[in-house]
Amino acid sequence: MCSTNQLWKVNEVAHLLHIDSSIRGDGSVSRKLTARAAAVWRAAHPGGTVTYRDLGRDPLPHLDAAGGMARILPRDQHTAAEAESWALTELLISEVKEADTIVLGLPLYNFGAPSSVKAWVDHLIAPGLAIDLETHTGLLSGRDFVVLASRGGGYGAGTPREGWDHAEPWLPHGLAATGLEPRFIAAELTLAEVTPAMAELIPLAAKSLAAAEQEIDGLWSPASALA
Amino acid sequence: MCSTNQLWKVNEVAHLLHIDSSIRGDGSVSRKLTARAAAVWRAAHPGGTVTYRDLGRDPLPHLDAAGGMARILPRDQHTAAEAESWALTELLISEVKEADTIVLGLPLYNFGAPSSVKAWVDHLIAPGLAIDLETHTGLLSGRDFVVLASRGGGYGAGTPREGWDHAEPWLPHGLAATGLEPRFIAAELTLAEVTPAMAELIPLAAKSLAAAEQEIDGLWSPASALA
Repeated sequence: MCSTNQLWKVNEVAHLLHIDSSIRGDGSVSRKLTARAAAVWRAAHPGGTVTYRDLGRDPLPHLDAAGGMARILPRDQHTAAEAESWALTELLISEVKEADTIVLGLPLYNFGAPSSVKAWVDHLIAPGLAIDLETHTGLLSGRDFVVLASRGGGYGAGTPREGWDHAEPWLPHGLAATGLEPRFIAAELTLAEVTPAMAELIPLAAKSLAAAEQEIDGLWSPASALA
Repeated sequence: MCSTNQLWKVNEVAHLLHIDSSIRGDGSVSRKLTARAAAVWRAAHPGGTVTYRDLGRDPLPHLDAAGGMARILPRDQHTAAEAESWALTELLISEVKEADTIVLGLPLYNFGAPSSVKAWVDHLIAPGLAIDLETHTGLLSGRDFVVLASRGGGYGAGTPREGWDHAEPWLPHGLAATGLEPRFIAAELTLAEVTPAMAELIPLAAKSLAAAEQEIDGLWSPASALA
């Protein structure tokens, strides 16, 4: 027997939105992790389709004085720049709405999210499209949103820089109005391999990466997709 | 009698770097606050000079896959895109180095700093220019760095969204490597005036703004500049 939710999954074509944001290429840990997650998802969803967006290679424009108010102003008052910015917001939100699963790579740069990820979030906070105008509830809820975070150092409880990761605590707040609720899998100490002063942390880094990979490998399974 | 530090202030031409980042024009609270601070600074420093940068009207490019690694890679290995990105970093850091005082407007968008402010910080984290290659100490220290923060809501202790301001806690960490140490003056609840559901908070918003303005008015005085 299938629940309503499971019927939906069986009857619709599963769709993944895969987003990277690292400015690195082959050296990127977050890109490796999102690629691994996408492979696990594909194996679990034969026939599933994927949209790929690369915020690191093709960053979205910042919200700026020319077009940035588009999401607040009524559409019939939009200038040309605001109409262009709104059209991009419509595209980005349609990418999210078409997906039942989202995988986002989130490296930590200078203790914050990449500016390109902030710009993506800023585009999504759109009343009428991502937030119900009457009820103020989020219209993007109900998706599985997996964030694969990579951090050069370690910022957990008891570490010298505890609390210096400002990306993971921010993202759920930044997206709260839309109903998107990220769950995080993180690899820490990724700079240990290439930073002499962090050499003694290499085993911890390897452990963190292995744990993240193991968690990714268990994210979706063919059995659960067809259950 | 003058201390060494005071002699320096008298003998050199005082220089202010004034930065805005709001995407709003006349309606921007942070722009009003930075303008007020710049006026106070000019009154206290006759003959002082000012550099103005508007991240809201002319955002800096995001660090991206094409040029973003410029600050990590050796200059003689730079691609054309990396050389261009590095040249912008040189310009931005020279603006900071020329200033003895910096005023930055920092609105809160979707619970984080504007993406354009993140891009500015990302450009400043440049080993060799802003961070000493040998000692790893910051080369931009010793400046008075005043951040005028504006927040649509209230996120202090005891409020329902305590901890949802991710801009002010992040900025000192983001810039720590450079030696720049921001001090903050904030106006909260700036959306109370235009948000019906926040109407009862209008008096608190007015109080917060008045306190910020009073603090700005006392930042610098002609007497202290010439003492």
